[in-house]
Amino acid sequence: MTLWTQKPINGVLLDITGVLYESGNGGGNAINGSISAVLELNKLGIPVRFCTNETQCTRRKLVKKLHELGFSMEESHVFPPIPAMCKILKKRGLRPHTLVSSAAMEDFSEIDCSNPNCVVVGDATTELSYDNLNRAFQMLIAMENPILFSLGKGKYYKDAGELCLDVGCYMKALEYACDIEAEVVGKPSSNFFNAALEDMGVDASETVMIGDDVVNDVGGAQTCGMRGVLVRTGKFRPQDEQHSQVTPDGIVDNLAQAVKLIIESKN
Amino acid sequence: MTLWTQKPINGVLLDITGVLYESGNGGGNAINGSISAVLELNKLGIPVRFCTNETQCTRRKLVKKLHELGFSMEESHVFPPIPAMCKILKKRGLRPHTLVSSAAMEDFSEIDCSNPNCVVVGDATTELSYDNLNRAFQMLIAMENPILFSLGKGKYYKDAGELCLDVGCYMKALEYACDIEAEVVGKPSSNFFNAALEDMGVDASETVMIGDDVVNDVGGAQTCGMRGVLVRTGKFRPQDEQHSQVTPDGIVDNLAQAVKLIIESKN
Repeated sequence: MTLWTQKPINGVLLDITGVLYESGNGGGNAINGSISAVLELNKLGIPVRFCTNETQCTRRKLVKKLHELGFSMEESHVFPPIPAMCKILKKRGLRPHTLVSSAAMEDFSEIDCSNPNCVVVGDATTELSYDNLNRAFQMLIAMENPILFSLGKGKYYKDAGELCLDVGCYMKALEYACDIEAEVVGKPSSNFFNAALEDMGVDASETVMIGDDVVNDVGGAQTCGMRGVLVRTGKFRPQDEQHSQVTPDGIVDNLAQAVKLIIESKN
Repeated sequence: MTLWTQKPINGVLLDITGVLYESGNGGGNAINGSISAVLELNKLGIPVRFCTNETQCTRRKLVKKLHELGFSMEESHVFPPIPAMCKILKKRGLRPHTLVSSAAMEDFSEIDCSNPNCVVVGDATTELSYDNLNRAFQMLIAMENPILFSLGKGKYYKDAGELCLDVGCYMKALEYACDIEAEVVGKPSSNFFNAALEDMGVDASETVMIGDDVVNDVGGAQTCGMRGVLVRTGKFRPQDEQHSQVTPDGIVDNLAQAVKLIIESKN
């Protein structure tokens, strides 16, 4: 009995970058077999949701890019951190100072950002300067009860073939500077995965999460009661197969192989 | 019996920034009474060494600036991290990629920086860009045994009246990204304090360290067996008096008050 057959698979969560496509100059390239893999899941009638920590552009632009690469999905089936963050800000009456790509700021359009009483750090990439990070620090240290949100906590991502520092590193810098702990919105937060599960209407025990981040995709999904499968694409590194804290339920070469195994488990 | 009289004081270590002078535009300003306080220690015949985590310029330029502000000290009595770092690099045959202010690079002039096999992070301040930090990360992650040195591990410093992120935050970011632990050169490392004690020829138990950083100056000195005194100048914040991990042996308004108490203890 394998992970694919131990319990029926009635829902699939997919990471986007490094699973559907490799990012890079000019928008990146679809990973071999990924476009048809998603179509096959649709044909089988298995609900799919896309769980991403992508914050470099708006959800609308992200989906547009995926459509241009050849993928088909509804925008509402894509779960990035910023819409989830906005819900939390509204619910708690918080006004953020954002350290987020300007290309993604449109998704904060309904949020009052005046007179900030919290800080939100996303992946600011090249816009991240000493001054920007310092300003976020100065706002936090001046607050009586500093509140820091981090849109994911990844260590690094892969862009145009190179590993690059991810938002988790800036989160750690600000946590250390202010002696605080950030609230993470995005993977591996259980609340974040659960919103996608709820939207599918499928129980965690019948769902598989497929991603290239052994800690945030695979480990995070396992903590929620899902099975977690690691792909050998994206930022995958051989040492991830022997990770000290996370043992994936399965490791596959790519999304196409994972979907093939899911289909076989149905026969 | 107070900290000043429990054991004779036969040596004094002084932090520089925030104790001797407040940094700021145009080189900063001497703190009231600090210039004569240093002179009075000299008159008493108590050896003094200056233990600083300053890495924004060479030791020579730092001492020149202090002389211009009115202080008198020999260059060899000033202990910044870079000369200590260079000794370690030579001893271990390491070639650093440095993330350090260009104004301080002259102090690395005897070090081979080609084909780096370790990373040294200092306070890069405004030169610290996403690209610079990312390059340091990429070098580390590509090493079989990544070695990271951090020139101090301060959370923040004060410049021109504003608190600013210090090197410890960048150290934490790189530690997290690469799953490694940095070796700290500078305060609060015991090796660093011990080099200054050895140079004075005074035992730790007869030495007082005076600084504005409750963790790295006061706590670090106490770990070495010295008494640690906190000043209410520099980056001092009222909450430092109730720090969760460090209880200073004494808290004084400024260096002048500390030296007055040392002089009284001698009579």
